[in-house]
Formats: sequence, structure tokens, C-alpha cells
Amino acid sequence: MKNLYTSFFALLLGASVLAQTNTIKGFSKEAAAKQLALETQFDANLSAANIGNTIKELSVKPHHLGSQGGKEVIDNIYNKLVSYGFEAKKVDYKVLFPTPKTRVLEMTSPTVFKALLKEPALKEDLTSGQTDQLPSYNAWSADGDVTAQLVFVNYGLPADYETLERLGIDVKGKIVIAKYGRSWRGIKPKVAQEHGAIGCIIYSDPRDDGYYQGDVYPKGPFKNEFGVQRGSIMDMVIYPGDPLTPNIGATENAERISSHNNAPNLLKIPVLPISYHDAIPLLQALEGPVAPDGWRGALPFTYHIGPGKSTVHLKLAFEWNMVTCTDVIATIKGTQFPDEWVIRGNHHDAWVNGADDPISGQAALLEEAKAIGALLKTGWKPKRSLVYCAWDGEEPGLIGSTEWVEDNAKELQQKAVVYINSDGNERGFLDAGGSHALEPFMTEIAASITDPQTNISLLERAKAQAIINAGSVKAKKDAMAKTTLDLEALGSGSDFSSFLQHLGIPALNLGFGGEGGGGEYHSIYDSYDNYRRFKDPSFAYGVALSKTAGHAALRMAEAEVLPFDFRNLTITIQGYVKELMLITDNMRDETKTDNEIIKSNKYALATDTALHMSAPKPKSEVPFVDFSPIQNALAALQVSTDSLSIRWSAETITSSNLNSFNTGIFKAEQQLLLPKGLPRRSWYKHAIYAPGYYTGYGVKTLPGIREAIEQRNWKEAKDQIAAAAAAINQLSAYLNGIR
Amino acid sequence: MKNLYTSFFALLLGASVLAQTNTIKGFSKEAAAKQLALETQFDANLSAANIGNTIKELSVKPHHLGSQGGKEVIDNIYNKLVSYGFEAKKVDYKVLFPTPKTRVLEMTSPTVFKALLKEPALKEDLTSGQTDQLPSYNAWSADGDVTAQLVFVNYGLPADYETLERLGIDVKGKIVIAKYGRSWRGIKPKVAQEHGAIGCIIYSDPRDDGYYQGDVYPKGPFKNEFGVQRGSIMDMVIYPGDPLTPNIGATENAERISSHNNAPNLLKIPVLPISYHDAIPLLQALEGPVAPDGWRGALPFTYHIGPGKSTVHLKLAFEWNMVTCTDVIATIKGTQFPDEWVIRGNHHDAWVNGADDPISGQAALLEEAKAIGALLKTGWKPKRSLVYCAWDGEEPGLIGSTEWVEDNAKELQQKAVVYINSDGNERGFLDAGGSHALEPFMTEIAASITDPQTNISLLERAKAQAIINAGSVKAKKDAMAKTTLDLEALGSGSDFSSFLQHLGIPALNLGFGGEGGGGEYHSIYDSYDNYRRFKDPSFAYGVALSKTAGHAALRMAEAEVLPFDFRNLTITIQGYVKELMLITDNMRDETKTDNEIIKSNKYALATDTALHMSAPKPKSEVPFVDFSPIQNALAALQVSTDSLSIRWSAETITSSNLNSFNTGIFKAEQQLLLPKGLPRRSWYKHAIYAPGYYTGYGVKTLPGIREAIEQRNWKEAKDQIAAAAAAINQLSAYLNGIR
Repeated sequence: MKNLYTSFFALLLGASVLAQTNTIKGFSKEAAAKQLALETQFDANLSAANIGNTIKELSVKPHHLGSQGGKEVIDNIYNKLVSYGFEAKKVDYKVLFPTPKTRVLEMTSPTVFKALLKEPALKEDLTSGQTDQLPSYNAWSADGDVTAQLVFVNYGLPADYETLERLGIDVKGKIVIAKYGRSWRGIKPKVAQEHGAIGCIIYSDPRDDGYYQGDVYPKGPFKNEFGVQRGSIMDMVIYPGDPLTPNIGATENAERISSHNNAPNLLKIPVLPISYHDAIPLLQALEGPVAPDGWRGALPFTYHIGPGKSTVHLKLAFEWNMVTCTDVIATIKGTQFPDEWVIRGNHHDAWVNGADDPISGQAALLEEAKAIGALLKTGWKPKRSLVYCAWDGEEPGLIGSTEWVEDNAKELQQKAVVYINSDGNERGFLDAGGSHALEPFMTEIAASITDPQTNISLLERAKAQAIINAGSVKAKKDAMAKTTLDLEALGSGSDFSSFLQHLGIPALNLGFGGEGGGGEYHSIYDSYDNYRRFKDPSFAYGVALSKTAGHAALRMAEAEVLPFDFRNLTITIQGYVKELMLITDNMRDETKTDNEIIKSNKYALATDTALHMSAPKPKSEVPFVDFSPIQNALAALQVSTDSLSIRWSAETITSSNLNSFNTGIFKAEQQLLLPKGLPRRSWYKHAIYAPGYYTGYGVKTLPGIREAIEQRNWKEAKDQIAAAAAAINQLSAYLNGIR
Repeated sequence: MKNLYTSFFALLLGASVLAQTNTIKGFSKEAAAKQLALETQFDANLSAANIGNTIKELSVKPHHLGSQGGKEVIDNIYNKLVSYGFEAKKVDYKVLFPTPKTRVLEMTSPTVFKALLKEPALKEDLTSGQTDQLPSYNAWSADGDVTAQLVFVNYGLPADYETLERLGIDVKGKIVIAKYGRSWRGIKPKVAQEHGAIGCIIYSDPRDDGYYQGDVYPKGPFKNEFGVQRGSIMDMVIYPGDPLTPNIGATENAERISSHNNAPNLLKIPVLPISYHDAIPLLQALEGPVAPDGWRGALPFTYHIGPGKSTVHLKLAFEWNMVTCTDVIATIKGTQFPDEWVIRGNHHDAWVNGADDPISGQAALLEEAKAIGALLKTGWKPKRSLVYCAWDGEEPGLIGSTEWVEDNAKELQQKAVVYINSDGNERGFLDAGGSHALEPFMTEIAASITDPQTNISLLERAKAQAIINAGSVKAKKDAMAKTTLDLEALGSGSDFSSFLQHLGIPALNLGFGGEGGGGEYHSIYDSYDNYRRFKDPSFAYGVALSKTAGHAALRMAEAEVLPFDFRNLTITIQGYVKELMLITDNMRDETKTDNEIIKSNKYALATDTALHMSAPKPKSEVPFVDFSPIQNALAALQVSTDSLSIRWSAETITSSNLNSFNTGIFKAEQQLLLPKGLPRRSWYKHAIYAPGYYTGYGVKTLPGIREAIEQRNWKEAKDQIAAAAAAINQLSAYLNGIR
């Protein structure tokens, strides 16, 4: 056995060089040959037509959390997985889920206008006229009945309120109207509420999501004037999942927060999403200053900030029901390591019919399961357990996955090797994010799967895109020279969040996109008719996703040595630290210069007096920050990871210590958890990855440090440097112990 | 006398330090005190109310070249100047000027549409309903009657045609529709014609010139849906002025090109400007690819490139009349140096009523003349001759100024000390361009005049603007540290062109702007009603222009030593050369990288196959270019200019050689003329400044070299480096000879 390991441990290094050969990271030459044959068999069982059928079948009815359509989808998925040979179960949680009973938005003066709040049925879209569709709303809006002047706040980001302040416009006691985009939607009402607004309207501007982008539905895929983006505004950067049961599973008898009014991740103001059709009269009635250049959209009039003579009435009331949230969990028990779980998941609930989001990803997952079922029939069984999951309640707040993860936290931290997520999937380029120790692993997979349109590897196509999109000659050259896949850091927005950020389980998020651009997202027009015309007409990218995620799952299940490489993580964190040091230096320089400019009155002198725009306020000067604790920790981590890789390449691993190596390695990322979690949001425990407090889905890497710097909280920056350094030191020590 | 000169020659250095003191560059202490008193007297005679009255009076009727209203304006100006004590004359030229007799633009399929081509009268705008207004048209369009498919070409720049080529769209035999903006309007039909188009429509997109920018007229100043920008499309980058008489004055019996059909600066295709109201149906009927992001405007639909099923019919016919072009030339003879002329000019002709363009500048000029008249009444007379000019025919192609300059070329090269131009003037910031040897002179003036709104100097306000607009911390710091005015290099677009670029006479172009933004330009809405509401309600910037240009003229007329400093010119040209070297290096690097990317097929791999977009074509590799001839010439020029300034500060100038110093200095810039002129446009002779062959108004510095590089013509780049170096060497030798 020993020699065998020697030969492939040498191969563990430099995956990129080997990508096109018949070697696989973590497999001996012999095992790799078997694995490649297995993957060929697996691929042969994937059918684009079948993926198309599944998408059609599962999107035939609206199937949001708690709905009749949802029950049918759950049963359908359960039955499929059982039929493929999986040991499946439905896991129920009892969760809060508000649905609208009253939605009124009207303008009472200067003109009378009542918002339509309705997407019309289209003859070109078979499911668009169905009943049982959830109307357009933002889940977790507060109940409310408010009447006030309206103020346009651009994208509703903190910087936009700085501009408003300079213009002397206060949103206190007012209703704000914000454009979708530039941040996750929930940030907009949160920041509005922080500034004293009593209501928030979010609309899709055709500049970002409509005719400016391309022909509108049904002529083309982009948002027509009536389309509305539904969506959750739960403040899930505090914690996701059922708002009443943070940190624990929302089981029947779980201890709950007494009322949604007391849930710390729910807002207090009414919030409603509307179409640009409905936004036009509201925006046109605004007076006050002309909106700055970056604020203006593509509607055919001059954007003003407001307020004006117009008064807006927003009345929203919701049924705050407890509903059943059902995950389908299906397992193929591993033959050698049944307690090492390779988990693969995609949600099944949609806002409406959800052909793209989530069914296109769910259909690919089910196709993988079908192909694995076919492998099982040949007598093959995985070494490690394969756990295929279909999550409920993702749309309102990652509920199904979060509750399951919270419910099974201890077991998962013992057994979960990796969590592989997907979600909506479209024609285009491989988009891969996740734990950076898996970067070489994903590079190898991306290099070994062929893009359906161009007949080159996914890796080569992603590289071509990076080259063409590079903004400078230097960036182009760098992109040309690059041979590995850039794994993106993960923020939030899909079901990987609780695995990675709450438990420290290595995660991947995989999907294709970039060529299916459209405006159907979270609207009634996310339908099969739309999908087959515009998103992935041949369903070839469904197959590509099945191959990518399926090979990832199979390789993780079958690897002799688990293909983590923490040297990539080290390099990645080193990059983040360098970036933060640069950001801090630049902030210091910029603050000093800006303060001088402000103090010397240059703003007043340079600004058109007719604009009545005051200067920005001076900011506190930026001190020099001691990054040495994290620099030293990273230096140690580099020694540890280099040493670990040398131990691997040396003849130190034998069949007797292979197990301890593997379990050691897959649990390593948990060492990066912060005992206290992040400031003001202890649910988030990962020291390296978190969704941004003011960006939402968008990731903040080294979040504790980065957000302290962004908020100019230097005491906290220091504490968070220490906390992250401690986590990194803990990882180093842990890796040193892997034998 | 000798000692007197010594004292102020020492002061010639370091103008910026002295700006706030009672010294003036070129004046002894005693003379400076007198001059400052003179300027105070001059200023006391400037009246904002009177400027407002003049604007109202001269814009009361349409007064384009050859019109009855024009005759009345000419008489009015002549009479004013005579009444102020100037010796005035009307100088007539006989020039070609086409006006429309037929204008038809219609779409015959898929829908029938006939363009309005008419700006309606507004009750808020008294002069908007007048007859005798020139209809909306582009002067110098060819006669034509064409019917063809339409293609949208973005701004109609060469790069836009590269995109069209990648999309497989050919404009040959088609009519193109281009947006106004990003280049001078005449470039659009010129490039269209080069690509085989048979007609060209230019429209104002509301993104660039309409409701996107702000409230539209009459609610606000921006272009309403019916507004049309008239304007010349003469290919004046070949030569400006009367197309039939290049290089010579268009006197009654001048030798003329036989027909406008043979004029090398006139295009061969029909061209028509339209409003966005008229553009909407045309653009909406286009099919084909969705226009790329940067091409899209603010109209409320998806922009397609075309062609489509639509067929467009464009029929234009013009009266090609010979008309009288009348400049008013008014002189106050200098007492000491009557043959040294300080020339001050602004045009008087407008496209329609022209309250802003040109009357706001003309009114400031007349106010200066009035104030000079008041000084004359006190017994004062200038040392040098003051020549105040009101030009006709600027709008169709700088005709009045160009013909006068060509007609009097030899005398001007002997006598013209400087030409000081202005044109439309609005509320805002001092905008100063011109010969860089005058940079310290203009810095001193800008530092000594107070901005009407902020009570700081024009220089300080311009600096504040530069600081606030700076894009980076480094740029902000640089702007904070700067103590001098940045004089812009001059391209074209007003009457300085022939003085500077044809004859090498030092020129300045002065005006205020940046806070009067609007859409009235070259439309019937450029009216007194518009001006007094939006452009400069108090006419205070009219007074500011009178002060700025008036002080410049008076200081030039009175200076003991003419305040040129060629060290600034040297530094400026050194900057241009460095920039060109960097551009060439970057082009080399970029070309090499791009060609590699193209050859390795990355475009095809990264492009959505549904877009059917081909890769760009590889470009010829960029050789290393020998800049040493111009580098050596500049090293020599630096020695010359340093030595000249030392000779000034030494006790070498006496009353006996002062005259030779002064005449030597003001003729020096003529040494920079290229004997053969620029390639393919020999009328343009200045080695340093020219309008761009493909930008129009936009300047190209070191134009022969720069445009050769841009066109990748390396042989020509080498020749033009030699030519520019020779001109610079000639200047050095000349400056060495000034004693």
C-alpha cells in the first residue's frame, strides 16, 4: 500500500499541470483510471432532454414555501430520489412565513394614482395566468399603514444617504423609494429604517432591469413594465433561517422567540416591491433637486429626489402563519466511510413557478441522482456517503437548509466532508465559489469538463472570459498567464451559508450563467416557456452543471486522500490582508486629503450655488493599524501548510493513518470559526467569509476586520485582527497535528 | 530708464508668487500702479445691466449670416463702436452660404412617419415664434434624395464602425443615424461617407442632451423633445472659412473654386439634424442586434442597431447663395506702437437668435469697448493699437474671421501681438485656452479678478473645481499644490483658429461656463428669455468676461515688455512628447497582447454565440519610434528659453533694444509654423496645436506626430517628428537671436 500512496502523493502537487492528463488529485493512478471510467459512465446517464422535462414538470405550478404546489414538488422529488435508489426522508420544520393579505400603494396628491401591483398573464407564457401565485411582495415586511411624502434614495445605500444629507434632505418620517440593484434588496429598507424612514418602496428601474438592457418579455428576456421582483428582506446578515429560532432547528417543539415583532432580524417598517409601470407616476411627482448623474435610470423623464407635493399611502398587512418547511434528504450510504458525508443540495421552493430559480439547478441535481442511481444498478457504491438534499424555504431566508444545519450541527461538524450547492442555472460560464482549499480540486474539474457551446474546457472558457473582460493590458496579461480557476469567496444568497459560515464546513457553490440575462427573476415570468426560449434552450448547461457538481461529489466520495490544499487558502488570506493594509493606507491618505479640502472650503467654492449642496463632513483621521498579529499568524500558517504538503509527498501516509489524515483534513476549516462569532451577529462564525453587513449577498472577506475598517472603528479592527489571527493560529496548530 | 527695467525684469519671474501683490508681469512698479488704476477705472465702467440690455437688443431677431437681422446687428455693433470712439469699418467678403429649400425625412415602412423638423413656439419664450428663423439643418450638407435602410451608428466615430464590422453590419448604401456628442458634429457624416453611407441623420439623444440631464425647456434649461441642434458640417479640419477660397480672402474678385461640388472640405452626402421626438419612430423601427451598452441612450425602449424592415427617405435641397459676410473692425490707434495690434474678437452671427451663442460674448466685448471709450474720454490712449472685431459667419465655418485673416495675413504676421477671443458665455468657471507662453500672464489675470458668486479669485475658484473634480487622491493633492492656471490647448470651434493655427499668432480664448448647462445650443430656444432665466440671470459673468478679456487686452496694449514666457511653452511641449512616448509604448504593449488574444481565439470562446459577434481584427505591431530629434530640439529650446529669461533679468534691456525685444517676442510663435503644414491639410501650419482630424473641435497637440501614431502610420510619425523638431529648433534659434 505504501508505495501506491507515494506515487500519487507526489501528484497532489501542481494540479493545474496535470489537469489534462489522466490523473486526479487525491487518487492513485489506478484509482484515477477507475474514477474516470466511473465519470464516463455517470455522464452517459445524463440527458439534456430529461433535465428539460424535469424543469417543465417541477415548474408547472407555483410552489412557494407552505403551498399546495410545494407539497407536490416535494413529493415528486422524494419519489424520484427513492426511485433512483436513495434512502430518502422528508424532514419537516415548523417555521414562520408571512404572506400578504393587504397591499395598497397609492398617491393621493397631486394626482390620484393607485398602483397596479399585478403582473398580467401573457399568451406566450402558459403558466403566467395561474392562480395560487404569491402576489408581488417583500417577505418579512412589517405590517403597516403609513402616509407620507416620498423621497427617491437611489439604490438606498449608506453613501446615498450621505448625498441626501449634503442636499439637506431628511427621510425621517417619510417613505423612500429605492431602485433594485447594487446591494441585496434587504439592505435598502434596513438603511432606510436606520435613517428614520417609515416605509420603503423598491422598484426595478429599466436601466438596470428592463428595456435598457434588451428586449422585454415576451419579445425578449428582459423585464417588462409590469414585472416585479419578489424577495425576502429578512435582515439575514444578522442570521438567516426561521426568524423565531436562531441557532437551533425549528422543530415542532423548539423554543421560539415569542413573536416576529421581537425577532432581531426583522425590520419594523412596511416594504413593497413594484414594477417600473407603477413607479413612473410616483417618480414623476417628485420635486426638489435633480437626482445626481449616478442616480438616474432609464425612465423618460428627469429624475428628481423629492420630496414634492405628492403624498403616498402605503398599507400592507400579512398573514404571519406557521407553515411546514420540508427538506428532502436522500442518502446513499458509503461503503468504507459511511460517517463521512459528501452533501449536495439545491432548494426546491420558488417565489412563483421558478423554472430557473431554483428548478434549473434542482433538475440538474436530480439528473445527477438519476445517474448515480444508474451506477448503483451496476453494483457500484460510493466509499463515502452521498447525501442529496432538496431544500425548502430558501427564498424567504435560506430556511430549510439553515434549520437542518442548526438542527444537526454537531453531527454535521463531525461528518460533513463538503457541501456542494447549486441554485438557478443558465447558459454561459462556470461560476464557482467556495472554500479556497478546494481551488486546485475545482480547477481540475473545470479543466476536465467540456463547455457545450465551444468544445473547450470550462476552465479555458472561463479564462477566455476573464481575458476579454480584463480592464487593462496588465490585467489581460495576468489573465492570459493564469492556469487555475479563481474560486470566488462566498457571501450569501443561497443554501451554502449555514454550512460554511455557521459551522465551518467546506463548501462549494456551482452554476453557469452570464448568457441567459433577463428580467424574470422572482417574477411570474420565471417560467418554463421563458426558460426554454432564453435561459438554456437546449438544456445543455443543465447537463454541464450535473457533470460539474456530480464529478465534484463523486470525487469527494471516492478520493483516497481528500483533495484539500490549504496552501491555496493561505495564499488567498495573504491576499486579503495585503488588500486590507492597502485599503487602510489609502483611507488614511484620502481622509487626510479630503479633510484638508473640506477645511479649506473648496467644496463651497467649486459647487454651483444654485444646487444648495453642502460639503461632505470631515471624517476622523485614520490611525496606523497593527496588522502584525495576522501577518505573523499567516507566516505560521504558510509553514504549516507547506509542511503538510511535504508530509503528503513524503512517504508518511500509509493505509493505517490515511483515515486520520482524511478526517483531520475535512474538519480543518472549522478551526477558522471565531468562538464569539462576528461583532453584532454572532451566528456568523467564519473568520474569513461572511455576507456584508451593508451589502447582503456580497461577500466580505476577513469580515470582522474589513467591516471595522470600513466603519472606522479602530478599536474593533484591532480586536478583530487578534480574533482572526487566533483562528488562523488555531488552524496552523491543527494542521501541524494532522498525521 | 535702465534701472527701471532692471527692477521689473526681476519681477517677470514667478508670476504666481506675485499675483496678489501690486505687480504686473511686463510692467515696472510705477507702470503697474498706473495700470491697476486704469483697470479700476475700466471696471467701474462695466455694467451688468447694460450687458443684459445688449444681449436682449442683439438677440431680438434671428441674425444668421446674410440675413436682414444680421444686417441690423452689424449696424448696431458698428454704431456702438463708433460712439465709443473707435475708428470702425465694415469689411465685406462675398462667401458661399447654403440655406435649405427642401427638407423631407420620412419612413415609408413598416409604419408611415413623417418627421416634424420643427421647433414649436413657446409662450414662455418671446422670440421662439418668429419668422425668418433658419429651419433646423446642417449647413454644407449635400443636396440629395436618398431612400434606404437605416443603421444606428452610436456617435458615428471610427471605433463605432469597428464594432459594426464585428457585428457584420455594413452601412454601404444605407442611411445612418448618429447621436450628437463625443465628437464635433461634422465628423459623423464624414466617417459615415468614408464607410459608404449615402445619408446621415444626427439626433440629440435625451441621455446626452435632454431630460436625462435635467428639466427640459421651458420648465428647465435642458433640451425638450422638439429641440434641434443646427450646425455646420463643413470639414473644417481640412480648412475653415469660405469653402471656395482656401488660403485667400473671399474678396469680391478673389479667384474661387468653380463650384461647391469641387470644394475639398465639403461632403457629398445629405445630412440632417433632428430632435429626439423625430428620432423615436426611426429608432424604434430598427431590428438587428441590441446596441452595446455604451451606445444606448435615454429613450424608453431597447436600442437596436438595425437595419430592419424600415425604409427611410431623406430629401434635402439647398439654395447655394453667395452672400455678404460683414466683419466689423474697430481700432484705437496706439500712441507709441501703432503697428503693434492687440486684437480682441467675438462673432456676431447666430444660427437663430443666439442670445448665448454668440451674443453673451459679444455683449461682454462691447461692454469692454464702451469702458475703453470712457477711458479715452479721460485722455488716456493705449500704447499699442487695440483692434476690436465682431465677426460674421462664424457659425457656418469661422468664415468672417478666416477670410479677414487670410486677406490680411502678411500684415497680421507683422503686427498682431495677440488675438483674444470669446464666444458664448455663462455662469460658472473661467475656461481659458491658448498659447502656452501666455500661461503666467493669464494666471496673473485670473488671480486678480474676483468671481461674482464666491468672492474669491477666478484662479482660486478654478482651482477649487479642479480639486473637487480630481479623480484620485494623487490628482487631488496635485491640484491642491498647483498655484497656476492651466491654459488649455486650443482645437477649433471659434474664431481663434485662423490666427493661431494658420498664422502662428499668439491667441487666447476666454469664457465662463459649467453652471449654465442646457439644451438651447443652436436652437430657436437660445433666446434672451432662456438666457436670463438659466444661463447668467444677473449678467454678472458678462462683467467677469469683460474684466478678464479687457484686462488682458489692456495689459497687452500697455506692457513695457510683452509678458510672454516661453519656458511655459517648453514645459508644455515636453509634457506632450512624454505623453506621446507613453502612448506609443502602451499601444505596442496593448497591440501585442490583443493580437495574442485574438490569435488564440479567446474572443470566440468568450463571446455568447447567440450574439454572432466576430473577434476584432489583429492590428499591425507597433515599432519602437525614434523620438530623439524632438527630445533634442526641446533640450535646446529649454536652453534658449532659460537663457532668454536670464537675459531679461540681467541688465541687458534698455530703452534702445526694448522694441526689438518686444517685436521679437510677439512674433516668436510663428517660428513654430510648419512650412508644408500638416499632412493632408496644409492650411493648418502650427506644429503644436490643431483640431483633430477625427475629433473636430477637440484639440490634438503635436498633431502631425499624434495623428500619425493614432493612425499607425510610422513613416509619417517619423517625418512629423522631424518636422516638429525642425520647427522647435527654428524657434530656439530665433529666441537666441532676440536681443
